[in-house]
Amino acid sequence: MKQIEKLSENTSYTAVNLGSLDTIAAYSLIHPVNKKQLEGKVFLKDATQATGTEISFNTLLPHTAQPYFHIHRKNEETYIILTGSGYFQVDEDCFPIKEGSVIRVAPKGNRGICNTSDDSMVYIVIQSKENSLEEHTTADGERLPFTPKW
Amino acid sequence: MKQIEKLSENTSYTAVNLGSLDTIAAYSLIHPVNKKQLEGKVFLKDATQATGTEISFNTLLPHTAQPYFHIHRKNEETYIILTGSGYFQVDEDCFPIKEGSVIRVAPKGNRGICNTSDDSMVYIVIQSKENSLEEHTTADGERLPFTPKW
Repeated sequence: MKQIEKLSENTSYTAVNLGSLDTIAAYSLIHPVNKKQLEGKVFLKDATQATGTEISFNTLLPHTAQPYFHIHRKNEETYIILTGSGYFQVDEDCFPIKEGSVIRVAPKGNRGICNTSDDSMVYIVIQSKENSLEEHTTADGERLPFTPKW
Repeated sequence: MKQIEKLSENTSYTAVNLGSLDTIAAYSLIHPVNKKQLEGKVFLKDATQATGTEISFNTLLPHTAQPYFHIHRKNEETYIILTGSGYFQVDEDCFPIKEGSVIRVAPKGNRGICNTSDDSMVYIVIQSKENSLEEHTTADGERLPFTPKW
């Protein structure tokens, strides 16, 4: 089973390497509830010590669908499609997706995804608590003096 | 200036298309504070009506660096490197990054990024409020019956 490589960290950050996108398929995990092995999926919260998001990288092999639909209790999800093409469905709406498609789904939306292309579909899913963001864009940031070491 | 294409939406979701990753460089925006034009950057919160994250797609041309370092007030940031390679710096730590690198930075970390490769660097930045996530991974989800329309 492929493992996440730790890059560097201190109290302000954690950096890891997942490997190139075409190797995401080699990750797998045991679903904590039904104990079944999920192929091509890797969660990042623990590895990066994130506190505001649970991000996962996911792969669907050519001409396959995620075998379940699901809702969430507290979390909004955003799907980012990096490779492949297919369809995304929320409740009764089904629409085509491809590289560059981004879908934000509210907790109550019953969602599913499939890859109808001849390539593997690689996509990122970002969980965050609905309505949790206060400041955003550049309003939360502040530029500081710096000395780049590169 | 390139515009985000709206795909589909209802009360449970919003779906958009950014276009293929090699076209992210064509996006630009006016920085709300200093009014300067930022090239190769597009924010997604408004377009997707997200409430828990501010996600941006970003491009650094070959052999260029983001011209500033910055901290945040409330938000943690996660950087996901999709193409290109170079260096990431947080405070005094500088380390190499490439496709598949993921860096979670706490608000107080003074951060910067550069692309030392001959390719454009495309990367995603996800802002979320530090310590906002409660449930995560599969614990927040619930599978439901479904009828796929694809």
